[in-house]
Amino acid sequence: MRFFSDNAAPVCPQVLAALAGVNQLDTAYDGDRWSQQLDGRFSDLFGTQVRALWVPTGTSANSLALAALAQPYGGVVCHRDAHINVDECGAPEFYTHGAKLMAGEGPGAKLTPDAIRTVIDPIRNDVHQVQPHAISITQATEYGLAYTPGEVAAIGALAKERKLGLHMDGARFANAVAHLGCHPGEVTWRAGVDVLSFGFVKNGGMSAEALVFFRPELADATLYRRKRAGLLFSKGRYLAAQLLAMLDDDLWLANARAANAGARLLAEAAGDRLVFPVEANEVFLKVTADEAAGLRALGFDFYDWGEGEARLVISWNQRPDEIRPLADAIRAL
Amino acid sequence: MRFFSDNAAPVCPQVLAALAGVNQLDTAYDGDRWSQQLDGRFSDLFGTQVRALWVPTGTSANSLALAALAQPYGGVVCHRDAHINVDECGAPEFYTHGAKLMAGEGPGAKLTPDAIRTVIDPIRNDVHQVQPHAISITQATEYGLAYTPGEVAAIGALAKERKLGLHMDGARFANAVAHLGCHPGEVTWRAGVDVLSFGFVKNGGMSAEALVFFRPELADATLYRRKRAGLLFSKGRYLAAQLLAMLDDDLWLANARAANAGARLLAEAAGDRLVFPVEANEVFLKVTADEAAGLRALGFDFYDWGEGEARLVISWNQRPDEIRPLADAIRAL
Amino acid sequence: MRFFSDNAAPVCPQVLAALAGVNQLDTAYDGDRWSQQLDGRFSDLFGTQVRALWVPTGTSANSLALAALAQPYGGVVCHRDAHINVDECGAPEFYTHGAKLMAGEGPGAKLTPDAIRTVIDPIRNDVHQVQPHAISITQATEYGLAYTPGEVAAIGALAKERKLGLHMDGARFANAVAHLGCHPGEVTWRAGVDVLSFGFVKNGGMSAEALVFFRPELADATLYRRKRAGLLFSKGRYLAAQLLAMLDDDLWLANARAANAGARLLAEAAGDRLVFPVEANEVFLKVTADEAAGLRALGFDFYDWGEGEARLVISWNQRPDEIRPLADAIRAL
Amino acid sequence: MRFFSDNAAPVCPQVLAALAGVNQLDTAYDGDRWSQQLDGRFSDLFGTQVRALWVPTGTSANSLALAALAQPYGGVVCHRDAHINVDECGAPEFYTHGAKLMAGEGPGAKLTPDAIRTVIDPIRNDVHQVQPHAISITQATEYGLAYTPGEVAAIGALAKERKLGLHMDGARFANAVAHLGCHPGEVTWRAGVDVLSFGFVKNGGMSAEALVFFRPELADATLYRRKRAGLLFSKGRYLAAQLLAMLDDDLWLANARAANAGARLLAEAAGDRLVFPVEANEVFLKVTADEAAGLRALGFDFYDWGEGEARLVISWNQRPDEIRPLADAIRAL
Repeated sequence: MRFFSDNAAPVCPQVLAALAGVNQLDTAYDGDRWSQQLDGRFSDLFGTQVRALWVPTGTSANSLALAALAQPYGGVVCHRDAHINVDECGAPEFYTHGAKLMAGEGPGAKLTPDAIRTVIDPIRNDVHQVQPHAISITQATEYGLAYTPGEVAAIGALAKERKLGLHMDGARFANAVAHLGCHPGEVTWRAGVDVLSFGFVKNGGMSAEALVFFRPELADATLYRRKRAGLLFSKGRYLAAQLLAMLDDDLWLANARAANAGARLLAEAAGDRLVFPVEANEVFLKVTADEAAGLRALGFDFYDWGEGEARLVISWNQRPDEIRPLADAIRAL
Repeated sequence: MRFFSDNAAPVCPQVLAALAGVNQLDTAYDGDRWSQQLDGRFSDLFGTQVRALWVPTGTSANSLALAALAQPYGGVVCHRDAHINVDECGAPEFYTHGAKLMAGEGPGAKLTPDAIRTVIDPIRNDVHQVQPHAISITQATEYGLAYTPGEVAAIGALAKERKLGLHMDGARFANAVAHLGCHPGEVTWRAGVDVLSFGFVKNGGMSAEALVFFRPELADATLYRRKRAGLLFSKGRYLAAQLLAMLDDDLWLANARAANAGARLLAEAAGDRLVFPVEANEVFLKVTADEAAGLRALGFDFYDWGEGEARLVISWNQRPDEIRPLADAIRAL
Repeated sequence: MRFFSDNAAPVCPQVLAALAGVNQLDTAYDGDRWSQQLDGRFSDLFGTQVRALWVPTGTSANSLALAALAQPYGGVVCHRDAHINVDECGAPEFYTHGAKLMAGEGPGAKLTPDAIRTVIDPIRNDVHQVQPHAISITQATEYGLAYTPGEVAAIGALAKERKLGLHMDGARFANAVAHLGCHPGEVTWRAGVDVLSFGFVKNGGMSAEALVFFRPELADATLYRRKRAGLLFSKGRYLAAQLLAMLDDDLWLANARAANAGARLLAEAAGDRLVFPVEANEVFLKVTADEAAGLRALGFDFYDWGEGEARLVISWNQRPDEIRPLADAIRAL
Repeated sequence: MRFFSDNAAPVCPQVLAALAGVNQLDTAYDGDRWSQQLDGRFSDLFGTQVRALWVPTGTSANSLALAALAQPYGGVVCHRDAHINVDECGAPEFYTHGAKLMAGEGPGAKLTPDAIRTVIDPIRNDVHQVQPHAISITQATEYGLAYTPGEVAAIGALAKERKLGLHMDGARFANAVAHLGCHPGEVTWRAGVDVLSFGFVKNGGMSAEALVFFRPELADATLYRRKRAGLLFSKGRYLAAQLLAMLDDDLWLANARAANAGARLLAEAAGDRLVFPVEANEVFLKVTADEAAGLRALGFDFYDWGEGEARLVISWNQRPDEIRPLADAIRAL
């Protein structure tokens, strides 16, 4: 009965089967027939020409994306609570060779054009200060909020006006799209996103994320950076296969919908205890230390989120009957 | 009938089965019960206390190892033909923040103490010149030669005398050990090796190599570097499982022996055409362009290695009856 | 009548004369007889064995210091308004290869142990979060406040407890010491400072700052880093000479006292308009836009400091009779 | 009687005088009236529109130039004996964030198109190998040879054909131009050079070199990189003044001619002992250890250059009557 992290969940059977399906001799690195399908398959999904590269982790996807958008002497505006800022051990700084993360504020880890302007407007346009080169937003945010297409587009417009690149950390992109019910292109390239880290691992995958470039030319240098980071797997087909399996029959969307539905079960039970609206597969709950201990005594596992709050995450494979006992326990607090 | 690269081979069934075997909820990153076994299992294998980390690729293993041994302002002596020098797109420079690779010479991509001294002795001990911090050797070498324990120990003694770290790129460590018939500890820590990139992917694995620290304290900073490089998989148990499966019943050794035996079949057929003795699973052959074309016309695939040479690699899963036709064709040239 | 910046001031005559004094053939780089005196002269000044290196700018001094104290995957706690954080174009990130600046809060750009704990206590001790490696404080602060020996010692004690290095950006160290009236050792190594960027350029020098290591062993790697950064001047004696001239007869202290005295003239005139107490050579003044325009119309030049504030800086060479007209004008506002 | 290095020479009086000449209050950094003249003055000198930045050292000039021309994942072709490769402690790797120096061969440290092709032609055009991004040549070379305009143009044509940037390390550019007797533009931008490190310190300057961009747009990012490297002096006018003084009345050329003439005095005396023709201010001489000891016993100081060779360098200020005794001593060997 773990609600600790979607990282702890198993891999979904279609992904495991896909590994067996490519278990044959083929070209090494990304020259195999499956890796070669990625550009086409993701272009179909997004309704525009993209370049799509497999990478093994969300952190590497984010960092390669930022290295494509920001020079070493530039900066990247992100939310103070952004995963890239607080949970990647300085990977963005490593891959960008020292670009500066510029932290903005806003409830629920959500940036707005105003919040971004608050960060960048005071920066003098001289060589003494690091100039912003890019913006990074997380979809869904670290608190499980989904940016609407309009919200992204407003940030995209600001990015364009200020000549900043726009990156979307989509570790839970699937959950956000499932919640929004929109076309995946609507909340990305149509809204001004240049690069997307499209997460699959939290959503049933094993070890493959997609780095999707809506400005395809940005992929050229990234191919070198990916190799240089030790991320070009010699047997890349086992990563490509995972992504293709997730795209088949929109498995990515089905898994995300299932997880989101589970989160809504908890959200309904939580009522006023909710810290934020539930728009993905994460539920942030106000609970006292005693209440948290009580839930744990019942066998529920979760993350303490600072004082007086708990984070509950629903995984793609948790069935309603596994979640309802927790919902009931929350109601009973 | 591909003899192009062991990277092209499929994954061995025990490894695939191991993935299914860990496909259950567990702690994320490397907190799971399988990742937690690595230190112990590799310590048992090597007969000394080691720290062993999973990483996904040989390039990342090598680069993390070098970052642990060389400061950004230092240098790493390696062979001119070393994989780290010519085929990793500058990954060592990336991970070490710009340490300099210092190329030595020697037949068969093999370094000797003399070859190393030729590189480092002319370096003035002043701040104008990059000072050597480490040595890296490849076991087996890029031309399929195995360093004997004595050869490694001679380099290890030099390293100790000059206060240099010693790294072993063991992308084909299994093949070397299979050839040497020695204990794996004899050719590593007992001979002065500080860090080993222990390769499994070319030997039947899918996406997991082991980074083995014989000076365990070096692992501490590497844990941060691994995360910072985006290499800390959220579902690390799928990497740990691969390594454990390869260690079980010495599968790593069995696979390597099989590949080596296949290479010897070709070596025997090749006779005077051999560029180097065959001490692993690679065969370098003198062939004219016409001869190479003839072999290809028969359906054999391989790598042209400069002018007048070809590289043939045997994979763990190629059976003698699949190899003999090529041996016969070589004899018939 | 410029009160814009002490960087705009000329070089004091003793420093210019010193350049002429060393204008003869001598050993290149730092092998000359003047550079060789620095360790001894600064050891005498501070009353302990130090290593002292010339560097040309405060930014390079700070960045080399931080590179000596923080690993690339570590962090440096500093005030949000610290020069290293806002006015060095990411130089600390460049020199440290991407260490993260961790911003603390506090009035007058002054850090306290509590402010530092607020930054570092929430950092989880795991590999996902950048761990603090060092603290950097500015003496005098960016708002002209001097840390007392006790205040530094409190931070030093925290640094020691948490095993963090402690760097002092002393761009205006002379002004702080002049204000405090203490021995320079009292507010540095006796209080736990490991490395000091001892500024001379703002205080009458031309192009030489001293990087003073109170833990002498830290200088060893820094010698390589200094060269690698292109900072090892081939004619280093012209930098050493500047520092020696400033140390002779405590010129550094005399110049700083003069500048501080000038600032006090303005402070007395400013009364309630002072944003901060004047403890160095900077005066921060509350003025309306109209008042600022009025002062400028009278020929006084200064820096607008956000809305409703102005920064006035007194240089080592500004005489009281040059400052009084501004004092009078401020009184007359 | 030192012939050890032109770095050991004093500063020429016009440069010292220029420092006094700017010793007045002015705008900080490079906003002063002298720094603002550099673009124009160097454009006049070269006969084309350039951007010219002061930097303090040749190493920083070279490294900034390479960072402008090569990405971190790229390579720079240079001669094995190039200063950037052997005497800058990895500064190019630091500034470029790890680009790889690719060493070519050729007598006298001189590259040719063929020598460059030998380096770059074997590089496979795939992501596993570092791709060349730029070429760097030294004018005059590390052995005192001058590239003729035609030789540079041949390299420039190759650079253009392969889309590589072309950098010239002109630590002794003045000596080369003095020898060639050509217009400085003829051997730089007209021949395809993109960026020139124009050295003045070895030629009578104190602490200022010029970084000259013949592709002016490359200077934009360099302004940030210069600041980020801690090289933006707060009192930049003291660097600008040095450069302007050297340009006035072609002092740079007069000083170089004087030094070259001195070297020719030695060259004539040396006869068959010359290792290379003397085309700048350096003389490489075949001498036995006994002969070298004999010269030293007479009071002459110089650099042993490997076994059986000595390097003699003439400085701008060494008069013929100071050099002739050494010439006589060489003749008498």
